[in-house]
Amino acid sequence: MLVVMEAHADAAKIEAVCAEIRAMGYVPHPMPGPTRTAIGITGNRGPVEQATRLQRMPGVAQLIRVTSPYKLVSREFHEGDTLVQVGPVVFGGPAVTIIAGPCTVETREQTLTIAHAVREAGATMLRGGAFKPRTSPYAFHGLGEEGLRILAEAREATGMPVITEVMDVETLPMVCEYADMLQIGARNMQNYPLLRAVGRSGYPVLLKRGFAATVKDLLLAAEYVLNEGNADVVLCERGIRTFDDTLRFTLDLGAVPMIKQLSHLPVIVDPSHASGRWDQVLPMARAAIAAGADGLIVEVHHNPAFALCDGQQSLVPDRFVAMMEQVARIATAMERPMAS
Amino acid sequence: MLVVMEAHADAAKIEAVCAEIRAMGYVPHPMPGPTRTAIGITGNRGPVEQATRLQRMPGVAQLIRVTSPYKLVSREFHEGDTLVQVGPVVFGGPAVTIIAGPCTVETREQTLTIAHAVREAGATMLRGGAFKPRTSPYAFHGLGEEGLRILAEAREATGMPVITEVMDVETLPMVCEYADMLQIGARNMQNYPLLRAVGRSGYPVLLKRGFAATVKDLLLAAEYVLNEGNADVVLCERGIRTFDDTLRFTLDLGAVPMIKQLSHLPVIVDPSHASGRWDQVLPMARAAIAAGADGLIVEVHHNPAFALCDGQQSLVPDRFVAMMEQVARIATAMERPMAS
Amino acid sequence: MLVVMEAHADAAKIEAVCAEIRAMGYVPHPMPGPTRTAIGITGNRGPVEQATRLQRMPGVAQLIRVTSPYKLVSREFHEGDTLVQVGPVVFGGPAVTIIAGPCTVETREQTLTIAHAVREAGATMLRGGAFKPRTSPYAFHGLGEEGLRILAEAREATGMPVITEVMDVETLPMVCEYADMLQIGARNMQNYPLLRAVGRSGYPVLLKRGFAATVKDLLLAAEYVLNEGNADVVLCERGIRTFDDTLRFTLDLGAVPMIKQLSHLPVIVDPSHASGRWDQVLPMARAAIAAGADGLIVEVHHNPAFALCDGQQSLVPDRFVAMMEQVARIATAMERPMAS
Amino acid sequence: MLVVMEAHADAAKIEAVCAEIRAMGYVPHPMPGPTRTAIGITGNRGPVEQATRLQRMPGVAQLIRVTSPYKLVSREFHEGDTLVQVGPVVFGGPAVTIIAGPCTVETREQTLTIAHAVREAGATMLRGGAFKPRTSPYAFHGLGEEGLRILAEAREATGMPVITEVMDVETLPMVCEYADMLQIGARNMQNYPLLRAVGRSGYPVLLKRGFAATVKDLLLAAEYVLNEGNADVVLCERGIRTFDDTLRFTLDLGAVPMIKQLSHLPVIVDPSHASGRWDQVLPMARAAIAAGADGLIVEVHHNPAFALCDGQQSLVPDRFVAMMEQVARIATAMERPMAS
Repeated sequence: MLVVMEAHADAAKIEAVCAEIRAMGYVPHPMPGPTRTAIGITGNRGPVEQATRLQRMPGVAQLIRVTSPYKLVSREFHEGDTLVQVGPVVFGGPAVTIIAGPCTVETREQTLTIAHAVREAGATMLRGGAFKPRTSPYAFHGLGEEGLRILAEAREATGMPVITEVMDVETLPMVCEYADMLQIGARNMQNYPLLRAVGRSGYPVLLKRGFAATVKDLLLAAEYVLNEGNADVVLCERGIRTFDDTLRFTLDLGAVPMIKQLSHLPVIVDPSHASGRWDQVLPMARAAIAAGADGLIVEVHHNPAFALCDGQQSLVPDRFVAMMEQVARIATAMERPMAS
Repeated sequence: MLVVMEAHADAAKIEAVCAEIRAMGYVPHPMPGPTRTAIGITGNRGPVEQATRLQRMPGVAQLIRVTSPYKLVSREFHEGDTLVQVGPVVFGGPAVTIIAGPCTVETREQTLTIAHAVREAGATMLRGGAFKPRTSPYAFHGLGEEGLRILAEAREATGMPVITEVMDVETLPMVCEYADMLQIGARNMQNYPLLRAVGRSGYPVLLKRGFAATVKDLLLAAEYVLNEGNADVVLCERGIRTFDDTLRFTLDLGAVPMIKQLSHLPVIVDPSHASGRWDQVLPMARAAIAAGADGLIVEVHHNPAFALCDGQQSLVPDRFVAMMEQVARIATAMERPMAS
Repeated sequence: MLVVMEAHADAAKIEAVCAEIRAMGYVPHPMPGPTRTAIGITGNRGPVEQATRLQRMPGVAQLIRVTSPYKLVSREFHEGDTLVQVGPVVFGGPAVTIIAGPCTVETREQTLTIAHAVREAGATMLRGGAFKPRTSPYAFHGLGEEGLRILAEAREATGMPVITEVMDVETLPMVCEYADMLQIGARNMQNYPLLRAVGRSGYPVLLKRGFAATVKDLLLAAEYVLNEGNADVVLCERGIRTFDDTLRFTLDLGAVPMIKQLSHLPVIVDPSHASGRWDQVLPMARAAIAAGADGLIVEVHHNPAFALCDGQQSLVPDRFVAMMEQVARIATAMERPMAS
Repeated sequence: MLVVMEAHADAAKIEAVCAEIRAMGYVPHPMPGPTRTAIGITGNRGPVEQATRLQRMPGVAQLIRVTSPYKLVSREFHEGDTLVQVGPVVFGGPAVTIIAGPCTVETREQTLTIAHAVREAGATMLRGGAFKPRTSPYAFHGLGEEGLRILAEAREATGMPVITEVMDVETLPMVCEYADMLQIGARNMQNYPLLRAVGRSGYPVLLKRGFAATVKDLLLAAEYVLNEGNADVVLCERGIRTFDDTLRFTLDLGAVPMIKQLSHLPVIVDPSHASGRWDQVLPMARAAIAAGADGLIVEVHHNPAFALCDGQQSLVPDRFVAMMEQVARIATAMERPMAS
C-alpha cells in the first residue's frame, strides 16, 4: 500500500503517518517527490488492515492499494488454465464449447424440438430457464419444477448436459436435482448468500457478469464460490450498461483477454442478451471466439415470434446452423476445434 | 404501441403487419410519413402481449411502447403522496426525516454511543448493519443475530425505530423479529424472490437504487413489493456507476424530482455511500434536501479510523451535528420542518 | 511514481527495473510486499518522463502516478479562491451569480424582451447564442454576427455584461468585439487550439465540462487556458452521459465540492442543459447552490413553444422569477448573498 | 412523430393538441389506449418542425420521433456499400485494409523505419501524427509541418498513401498539401466547423467516434461532411467511456454491424487506442475483423519504450507481423482477402 500525502503536508504530518504505520506493525518507507511525499508500506502479509486509520490522518491525500483483492481466482495463485468438466463437456481446454437452447422452457414439445435442433447443429450443452428473473413483476416467470423436469427429459433424449439458472438459496436443492450446471444470472452476481450456497453445492457454476460490474467485481464474485472449495466456475461476459442506447447492452469483448490474463478460469460469451437483437448474434458470436472466448451461450427458438420471453433475440434453428458454421470457421482460424 | 416500418417497406408488408395486429385482437392505425410508415395499435387493455410476433415480421424496423410498464407505484395510479409510517416516524409528509447510525454494528458499546449521539443531534431513526454484503469474501460480514440484538437494545435506550439490511429470504424472519424497517441494498434491488418476501412480510421497506438501475428499473423493483400488497416503500437514491472515477459513485440528484413526478412513494438520499468520502456528505446532504428529498440516511461513527467497514465515509458525531444544522437551514428554505 | 511488479517477478527482474530507474537519473526504492514488490521512484522534479521504458520491461505489472497532471489550476499551487471579474460581475466571491437569457438569439425583439425580464428578476449577466453547435447539420445554427450585435444592444439596454459561445479560432476575433465573456461549450472542451486561443485572448472564459469528461479532464482543459497566462476561468458542470435515459444527462453535483477542493477556480452549474426539461430546472438550481456552486447559467424564453432551439428546457419569465426566489432562499441558508 | 398524452389528459386537452397539429399544417391521428391516448402526426415531409409547441401543451407527456435525424449517411437513402478510394487503397469493398504506423512522427529515421516495417508486413496505408491533441498542455504536441514533410517522404519511399490528423480549420490547408486522407480525432468528432471544412476540402476523411458519442451521434457527425458534398467518409470505432476501469476505453464492437446496417459507409476499428495496452491489440484486431469491420488502424513503434506518445499501446514490428498473420486467418474465415 502507498500513502500519498498532500502537497502542503509538513514533516510533522509525514512523521505522524510513519509512526501510525509502525504502530500498526508495518514498516513505512517515505519517498519525497517533486510536489509531495508518498509513503510505501511493507511488512504486511495480506491487504493492509484498518487502512482507514491512515486515510483520515491530517495531510493524507490518498491511499493506493497494490495487492489485488482476489486470490484464489487469480493466475498468480494458479498459473495453468483451469478445466471445468460437466459430464462429457469441458470448458477451458482447446475446444470451443457451445451452449444453446430456449430462453425459457415453455412446453415439453418446444424444449425437445429446440434441444434436438441445437444438438444436431453441434451444440454440446442445453440451456433453458425454469426460474426467470424479470424486470417486471407482471412478466412470465418460468414453469418452476415442471420446467426442470422437461429439461431433464431433454437431457435423456439428446445426451446433452443441462444448465439452468438458480435464483435463490431456497430453490437451489430442487434445481440441483435436475441440473448439471448452475447459472448465476447477471442480476444475482453480487447475491453473496447465493454465491456461497452454489459454492458449497459442489456443482459447476456459470457466473454471468453483472451489467454494472467491473472485471474486478466479477473476479471477486467468483472468489466467493472458490472460497467455498468449488473451483468449477466458468465466467460469462454478457454486456454492460453504457450511455449508448443503440443496443440493449454494450458487449465488452476486451474483458475476454483481460480475464484470461488475470485469472485461470474459463470465459464464455453470451451474444444473445448483450444486444437483445437476433441479427447481432452472428457477428458477435464470431467476434467473441476471435477475441479468445472458450465458448458461447446462445438463445434459440423455433418460433421466436411466439416465445414467452426474449423472442426478439432468439435465433431460429436455421440461423443457428449458419452461426455454427461461421463460428467453426473462426475457431479453425484460431487453431481451436469445436467441442463435439 | 407504435410499429415503425422500414423506409423501403412496401404496401404488402404494411398490410401484413396490420393483418397480424387484427389477428391479435387489436386495431391497427397506419400513418404514412415522409420517409416511412408507422402503425399505431389501439384496443389493448394493458401492454400489448406477444409483441415479438410483430417485431420479427418483414419490414418492421422498431416497436415503441407507450404504456409505462409499472402501475401500482405510479402517480397516475395514485395521485396523492404516500406516507410511510414506522412507529413515530413518517416518510413522505412535510417533515424531513434523518436516519443515522453506524455502517455496521460492531459492539454494544459502539452502537449505543453512536445511537445516543445521533439521537441528540436530531436523527429520528437508527441505522446499523448486522448482515453486510461485501464485494470481497474476505471482508467483515457483520455480527448477524448478535448485531440485531444490539440494535434492539439501542432502540430501547433511545426510543428510535431501527432499520437494518436484509440480505436473503432465509434470514428475513430473524431480521423481522428485531427490526422496524427493512432495507434492501443496492446489490439486491433486482433480487426478486427477496423483493416478494419483504412485500409479503408487511414491514416497511427502504429500497435502495441499484448502481446500474435506471429510474424505471427502480420503480419496477418497487412494483414487486407493492404487488404483494405492501405499499410501505421508501425509495433511496445512493449513486450510480459512471465513467467518472473522481468519486466512488455519481449521486444522481435529478432522480429525486423525477421520481416524485412519476411516483407517489417517498424518496430519500444516501450521501455517504454515493461518494465514499466523509467530506462530500455535508454538501450532498444539503443538495439532496434542496432537490426535494424527503430525508437522508447517513453513516456516523465516533471513531471512524477504527471502523470495521466504510470508515472513510462516516461522519464523526461533531460533523453530524454540523450537518444537521446545515440541513435544517436548507429545510427551512424549502419550508419544511425537520422531523422530531 | 510507483512501479508495481508482477507476483512472479524474480530478483533479477526487480534489479533490472531499479537499474533502468537509475539510468533515467532517478532513485529507486524497492519495497517487497506479501505477494509482490513495488518500487518507488524519487528524484524527479515533475512527472517521470519516458515512463514507458519501465512499463514495457519484463515483470512490470503496472505504473501508478502520484503527481497530479495539472498544476496552475490546482489549489496546491494557489490556495486562495480565485475571483473572476467581468465588468461589475464577480464569480468566486461570497455572492451567488446568475447568468440567464435565451438559448439562441433569434430576433432583436426576442432578445431584448428576455434580457429585460431576467434583469428585472435579478440576473446580472446575459447569455445568448449567436453561433450554435448542433448535433444535426440541418438544425438552426444561429444568426452569427447579427446575433452578436443584438447581444451588444441588449447590454446597452440593460447594463448586463454579455456571455456567448465561441466555436472556433476563426470567429474568435469577431466574438471578442462584442462579448464580455467567452463560453467554451461542452463539445469543445477538448478543442485544444481553441482553448489556447481563448487563453491568449485575455477574455474571461466560462469552460463547460464535456459530457464524457472526468473532473480531472476538465481541470486539464482549464490548465490549457491558464497556461497561456489567462487565469480568468469559471468552470461549469452541465451533466454527463450515463446509462440512465430518464433525463438527457445526469447532473453530477458531487463535482462541485470536488472541484472546489482540487482547484481555486469558481464553479457554476447549468441546470437547463443537464436535464433538457424545464420542470427539472428549479429543483436542480436549488440543489446546485446547496452543493456550494458559485452561480448558475439558465435558459429563459418568453415564448418557448416557438423557440428555435431547446424550447423544452427554457423557463418562461414567471418561472424564472420563482426560481430566483427559491434560489435566494437557499443562498440565504448558505449564508451567501445574491449578486446584484 | 407521436405525441403521448398523460394518463389524466381529458378530451379537451387531446382536442387542443389535435387543433395545434392542424394549425401546423399536419394531420393528427388520435389513438386511445388502455391508460392514455397517443396522437400520431402525418403530412410532414421531414422532421416535424417546432415540435416544442406541442411538448409544452397541457396534458402532453412525451414526443416520440419516428423519422431518423440523418439522411445522406443512411442505408435507406443509399442502399449499396460506398467505396472510399485513397490512391490505390479502397475501403468498404471485399478486401480488409490495414493502416499502420507510429502514433506520432518523431524523427525522419523513426518514421521511415516503421513505414518500411509495416509495409513489409502487409499494411497498405501509413498513419502518423504531426499535430497531436493531448489531454495535458505539457505533453508533446507533434512536429507540425516538419512531421508532415517526413510523412510525405515516407510515402515516396514506400508507395503507401498517408493519413494524418487535422485539428483545426487553420492548419487544414497545410495538412492537405501533404496528406492523402484526413483523420478527425475522437475529441473533434463534434467540432462542426472542422467537419464542414474537411467536407469542403474534398479529401477522404477518417472520422473517429467520440468516446461519449452514440452510434447516432457518429452518423450525424458524418452527415455534416456528406452534406458538404463529400461522401468519402470512413467511420472508425475506437472505444467508449464506461464505468469499467480495467482498460482505458471499452471497445464497442457491436457498433460495427449496427453501423453497417444503418449506413452505407465503410467502418474500421482502432484496437490500439481502445485499450491503451499493446497486449490487447491482437485479440481485439481479430475480433474486429470477425465482427465485420472493413479494416484496422494500428499503432506500431520499433522502440516503444522510448516513444514520445502512447508507447504502452504500440506494437513492435514483430508483434505487428504476428497480428497481420492472425488477422489474415480471420479474414479468410470471413471469406475476405487482405488488401495488398
